[in-house]
Amino acid sequence: MSEAVAEVVAAADSRVTGDLYAEVQTFYARQMRRVDALDIEGFAATFTEDGSVVHAGGDRQSGQAEMIAGMRANLPRYQGIAVRHWFGHLLIEVDADDPDTVRVSYYTLVTLTDAEGKVSFQPTFTVDDVLVRREGRLLTRERVIHRDRPAAV
Amino acid sequence: MSEAVAEVVAAADSRVTGDLYAEVQTFYARQMRRVDALDIEGFAATFTEDGSVVHAGGDRQSGQAEMIAGMRANLPRYQGIAVRHWFGHLLIEVDADDPDTVRVSYYTLVTLTDAEGKVSFQPTFTVDDVLVRREGRLLTRERVIHRDRPAAV
Amino acid sequence: MSEAVAEVVAAADSRVTGDLYAEVQTFYARQMRRVDALDIEGFAATFTEDGSVVHAGGDRQSGQAEMIAGMRANLPRYQGIAVRHWFGHLLIEVDADDPDTVRVSYYTLVTLTDAEGKVSFQPTFTVDDVLVRREGRLLTRERVIHRDRPAAV
Repeated sequence: MSEAVAEVVAAADSRVTGDLYAEVQTFYARQMRRVDALDIEGFAATFTEDGSVVHAGGDRQSGQAEMIAGMRANLPRYQGIAVRHWFGHLLIEVDADDPDTVRVSYYTLVTLTDAEGKVSFQPTFTVDDVLVRREGRLLTRERVIHRDRPAAV
Repeated sequence: MSEAVAEVVAAADSRVTGDLYAEVQTFYARQMRRVDALDIEGFAATFTEDGSVVHAGGDRQSGQAEMIAGMRANLPRYQGIAVRHWFGHLLIEVDADDPDTVRVSYYTLVTLTDAEGKVSFQPTFTVDDVLVRREGRLLTRERVIHRDRPAAV
Repeated sequence: MSEAVAEVVAAADSRVTGDLYAEVQTFYARQMRRVDALDIEGFAATFTEDGSVVHAGGDRQSGQAEMIAGMRANLPRYQGIAVRHWFGHLLIEVDADDPDTVRVSYYTLVTLTDAEGKVSFQPTFTVDDVLVRREGRLLTRERVIHRDRPAAV
């Protein structure tokens, strides 16, 4: 098989259906409503029990208990601020060996609106997730958050 | 039926198909092009005749005529400004009793670009819509706009 | 056929499926990762050989070689800046005569994040693309970029 054909086949193999696209977007719509409501326990519950997050600074939280503790420590910075996470350009790929494991990469932009309505922005990030489907529902098993850095010119 | 199973069933029942996801997104893409073009009559026509909007400040407009009058009164604030509405994190739910009634909740961010190209932002909002499908086309029947407020820390 | 019915039929004809919606979004997710990585050759390769871009200022680049030269000349402005393109409100329409030709219109917002994490914004744009599917993969054949201008009040 020529390289060009192999590439086409690979692209076809990894094609995301409309149903999966909607399922993944809906999962994040629910997960982000929880984080933006500062519902820490509700947010942690969208991860597997052994779920992990690696933050852009390198800190790693393993398991829902560590996640909850880490988020609680960060709560003061959201005092008086309405935070909203915006996503862009999802790339979704089903694991070749397991249809219930889904890798997703996406852009995030975070807005912070203060009491006067003034909007400010956190730096942009790109996130790599591994989602797993358990009893028909998606959960995040792994999340790695990358701070967007200038590309080499 | 255990509580856990009931929850899974509920999640499965409300699963949004890819086709519905695309239909709803396309509806908003058309509706927002009209509002961003300041096409007041065209925008009002994306609502049912008896459609209503409750604004974040509490004002309620009922019916297309009231909507048009309200928007016309607000036009001067967009003098010399290119306005664009951005949506995020749609949550879509088909009415259990009527497949042609669809509830949608979403985030909105509004950019205002002036003649020099400087971009400013309105505070972020979350919107709850009731859409209805009439002769195969979606229309907005009810819209409630919520200004995003800081969550309790 | 009454005008109202004709309009409904037209709307039904142009209905975008969930699978096409996901395919188009995935295409842009890949294309924008390349442009945001300043991968000029990789970005140009998401166009047809004879692909063209008409920029908001009126400049037209025809063919991948011209595109590459034009982007290379613009690289210095991205020195030390992480650029990200955000899309909104895609309108997708399959050509009535050719299912492998797809017209897409969308909003774009471009964020520029500097080394300190400060985010600034380019003016907003609306883009009209013609995509073609070749050996199962989408490519951009034509792109026309419009700077968003204030609507008449």
